[in-house]
Amino acid sequence: MPIKKLYGGIEAGGTKFVCVVAGGPDHIVDEIRFRTTAPAETLGRAIQFFQPFVAQGQVSAIGVGAFGPLDLNPESSTYGCITATPKPGWSNANVLGTLQQALQTSIVLDTDVNVAGLGEYKWGASKGYDPSLYLTIGTGIGGGYIKDGKALIGLLNPEMGHLRIPHNRELDPFPGNCPFHGDCFEGLANGPAIEKRLGVAGAVVPEEDPFWDIEADYIASALMNYILILSPKKIILGGGVMQREFLFPKIRRRVRKLLNGYVSSKSILENIEKYILPPGLGNQSGSLGAIALAMQMDEGDSDPRI
Amino acid sequence: MPIKKLYGGIEAGGTKFVCVVAGGPDHIVDEIRFRTTAPAETLGRAIQFFQPFVAQGQVSAIGVGAFGPLDLNPESSTYGCITATPKPGWSNANVLGTLQQALQTSIVLDTDVNVAGLGEYKWGASKGYDPSLYLTIGTGIGGGYIKDGKALIGLLNPEMGHLRIPHNRELDPFPGNCPFHGDCFEGLANGPAIEKRLGVAGAVVPEEDPFWDIEADYIASALMNYILILSPKKIILGGGVMQREFLFPKIRRRVRKLLNGYVSSKSILENIEKYILPPGLGNQSGSLGAIALAMQMDEGDSDPRI
Repeated sequence: MPIKKLYGGIEAGGTKFVCVVAGGPDHIVDEIRFRTTAPAETLGRAIQFFQPFVAQGQVSAIGVGAFGPLDLNPESSTYGCITATPKPGWSNANVLGTLQQALQTSIVLDTDVNVAGLGEYKWGASKGYDPSLYLTIGTGIGGGYIKDGKALIGLLNPEMGHLRIPHNRELDPFPGNCPFHGDCFEGLANGPAIEKRLGVAGAVVPEEDPFWDIEADYIASALMNYILILSPKKIILGGGVMQREFLFPKIRRRVRKLLNGYVSSKSILENIEKYILPPGLGNQSGSLGAIALAMQMDEGDSDPRI
Repeated sequence: MPIKKLYGGIEAGGTKFVCVVAGGPDHIVDEIRFRTTAPAETLGRAIQFFQPFVAQGQVSAIGVGAFGPLDLNPESSTYGCITATPKPGWSNANVLGTLQQALQTSIVLDTDVNVAGLGEYKWGASKGYDPSLYLTIGTGIGGGYIKDGKALIGLLNPEMGHLRIPHNRELDPFPGNCPFHGDCFEGLANGPAIEKRLGVAGAVVPEEDPFWDIEADYIASALMNYILILSPKKIILGGGVMQREFLFPKIRRRVRKLLNGYVSSKSILENIEKYILPPGLGNQSGSLGAIALAMQMDEGDSDPRI
């Protein structure tokens, strides 16, 4: 049996970091998880984890999926940095530069959602479906769109959580909690918005609560827009809010109702329960996606995103 | 000077057909325009126009940008046909098959907006900007997204006119005129919706009419969504409604206000008047785009959309 090449992957989240050394989902050699604290300390722990593997030439490249906003423009002077984030200490943190300088190996950075989308496309619920869309609905809302096997970056990376969608003010007078846009999709539907309305975390709001129909409507409105604009062949919904599994059938029904037969594809008209899905990699979409990104860089021998 | 290769292009619109033989925008050999009547008669006129060029081996391929909805799935039994359209006689019209059978040459079909987007990307206002977006706002609303030099088709071709956006019911109680979705973007902002509200065509509504601020708000809401999802490097706005040039500054201001600094790109923050633009090819985006599509097929020796 040939020895499988190994790669490094970092899921650099705002709450926790996951670092893995793996050749794929069935060949995870080592893994470590720790809380996200100050940048120097947190990136230092990641460096410490990878150092022996790098020193012995065991990893060919390292992929990183990071929370943002990120500067992903290679021509910018702050390329590879986190830009203006409310997370204390992390504004202007040079994630890519710090890792590269310490580890002296090929490192490639993308957004957490782009990387999770890549993981699901390579090994998960959207495996082989091109184009496909991965969406996280949790503390924040964001999406990664995979087209021709690569995650989309254009003028900047997409920020598709901040869509303008109809706000049902009659049933839901909550003004939204987005500091930029008030009642954009993220401002209406993210985890903190649920908690602000109901006084308790979404995780403990009973399934019978009529609010969930409103939440499903906002998510379905956004999905309708993604479908009409991006025409994905699969949509994966991850993140904390989507842990409430009863939301899936509500959302699917509502998407079909909103589209009203306009997108005449069997995937939507007949098989929507196989079209809008939870992640196939569970909570590993991000870390394994980072492995997939590293593999892409290694195979293409350059930044796969450009 | 080498002899330039020639191609055929058809802008197959619901109102008129434009057929050209050209090597590019500076080398148009022949052109004909006629009203869209019944399919057999209309496609017959196009065939008659191209026949002598094909017979003498003068055109290497023919590109077609057609109104829809179209079946663009090569594996479908109705591939190349217009599907369910309200336009009398055109439901199930086999555009691609009819042209291919009569002309016996390489023909490639895509949507009118995808093709116009390609034309603008190749020779017009978004020349060389990848990804870029072309939007038409007229009798219908639709968009073509160009990524890696090709127009996006996914599960189906995008139908990005039918977005869900906030409807300002207080200032604008009009319920929308989309037969599928009522007050989607197209239902609120297309040409017929303007005429239904105001009793006269948008072309003669005075610039001072306060309705234009509402129209600009709907267009800006949709553009905000396209920007956040697709991250295009240029946005081109064509179509009948956008003939009212005073709309451009209104829309640009409103897009900036809605985004509220969230997309921190100089293209939007400082140079938005070069970011949201009218077509560079005027009313030839469609016919020249069809030439560009034919060139792509000829160069790639297969359907460039797959």
